Amino acid sequence: MRYATVIDPTQPDRPRAAVLQGETWHALGEEGDLSALLASGVLAAGGAAPPVGAPVHGAVLVNPLPAPRKVVCCGLNYGDHIAETGRERPQFPTLFPKYADTLVGPAADVVLPAGVEADWEAELAVVVGAPLRGASREEAAAAVLGYTVANDVSVRDWQRRTLEWFQGKAWDATTPLGPAVVTPDEVDPAAGLAISCRVNGVEVQRDSTATLVFDALDLLAYISTFTVLRPGDVVLTGTPGGIGMTRDPAWYLADGDVVETKVEGLGVLRNTVRLTGS
Amino acid sequence: MRYATVIDPTQPDRPRAAVLQGETWHALGEEGDLSALLASGVLAAGGAAPPVGAPVHGAVLVNPLPAPRKVVCCGLNYGDHIAETGRERPQFPTLFPKYADTLVGPAADVVLPAGVEADWEAELAVVVGAPLRGASREEAAAAVLGYTVANDVSVRDWQRRTLEWFQGKAWDATTPLGPAVVTPDEVDPAAGLAISCRVNGVEVQRDSTATLVFDALDLLAYISTFTVLRPGDVVLTGTPGGIGMTRDPAWYLADGDVVETKVEGLGVLRNTVRLTGS
Repeated sequence: MRYATVIDPTQPDRPRAAVLQGETWHALGEEGDLSALLASGVLAAGGAAPPVGAPVHGAVLVNPLPAPRKVVCCGLNYGDHIAETGRERPQFPTLFPKYADTLVGPAADVVLPAGVEADWEAELAVVVGAPLRGASREEAAAAVLGYTVANDVSVRDWQRRTLEWFQGKAWDATTPLGPAVVTPDEVDPAAGLAISCRVNGVEVQRDSTATLVFDALDLLAYISTFTVLRPGDVVLTGTPGGIGMTRDPAWYLADGDVVETKVEGLGVLRNTVRLTGS
Repeated sequence: MRYATVIDPTQPDRPRAAVLQGETWHALGEEGDLSALLASGVLAAGGAAPPVGAPVHGAVLVNPLPAPRKVVCCGLNYGDHIAETGRERPQFPTLFPKYADTLVGPAADVVLPAGVEADWEAELAVVVGAPLRGASREEAAAAVLGYTVANDVSVRDWQRRTLEWFQGKAWDATTPLGPAVVTPDEVDPAAGLAISCRVNGVEVQRDSTATLVFDALDLLAYISTFTVLRPGDVVLTGTPGGIGMTRDPAWYLADGDVVETKVEGLGVLRNTVRLTGS
């Protein structure tokens, strides 16, 4: 199954959870967007499929998960990215959070102040579909609602200001997510999905999700050791090599740049960078 | 004014926002706890005081803010603590987040697995009472609902596992907060409030909030550069010198230890550490 949050152009103020049937998105549940449907328990990993409603003609896909309570990200999780940052292969996942406010839709502009060092980070994201605390990998697997695409757009100068990356990673509405959440019966990231990022058509990142040091299930289990994960929470699994910061010279995103982030079988994010007078 | 979230022992499942009048807590609003009252807009920094309800006899004070969307913490923000960690006085605040789930009440047990390196960090916390984005210090001042006490209990071995502190700072129900939120007409942390921590009656930290490198208003303004702060959000301003990790030998919290965290004029947290078989 493919779940999304869609806008019906005739009801633009009412985002709806939806499911793809054939080529057409159909409304799902009466709860509002996909975050609300998951919070209500009407949709859950391993649960019965909610009744499918009417087709949404001309559906526009927006951020599928506007209201996760937790968005946890893993850094330094692909071998080539670890190498380009000069680090050792880690024993434990390096984790940092974003907010629901940090997320933005699959076709949205990414707006930042002029002058910041904005960089791309194509990522596989996993969406939690059942509560997890102290979970094993097997329990984590049973709690996966599905997978989607993210770009952990990072403000490198702010990220480097202090020891902690957080202030470079949590700018409102700068992490594109989507376009849809694809259930694990349709895709298996551990078996290897191609992940890539293009900037103005030039490929800057390409790898396979099979080479993750800590895979999605490792991360869900590990995080659940210290904090509960709930339906609708999102975990970003880290980015492959090819970021802009470590190039010589460094390459940062410019006003008008188009960033395309793709994971095989999941879809494409296409976002334009807007750097505004600050 | 002093705001809190209280439990009426005759209605233990119904936490209520309350205000202190004389020696007695009185119910405030019909919205539930203090987080709900702030989210509804019935209580706001600079707003009209909501109608005061009936006295709550035998009120038990619990975590005043059970549902902030954002809990942002500052590290390395007192000179003696910066020195004990071997760092330089910073140009920018070092920020990291916790979750609403991380918070716990002013008299609650702090429960962690046996074997972890649990450490104390007495802190002044500021509670947001109006939305802030791109705010100046003056705008931040107008948006302060009040101040309260926190202990940023830290799991040092997990904090040191990777570059990012987050996984040592976000264990569920380990950061005591409270007991009450005191409005800025009654206390001025910038003028200097004594802050201290005692473990089993032994004073381990003592300083004045006047020596903060970045004060509460600096932090609200800085954070609001990259993300919106909303009513009910909480910012922890950092801890003074005297933590356990940097002692020789290191001193970590043991099962049964009683941690008392005090800020002058705001009140005391008194929490027992419980280390459970893990």
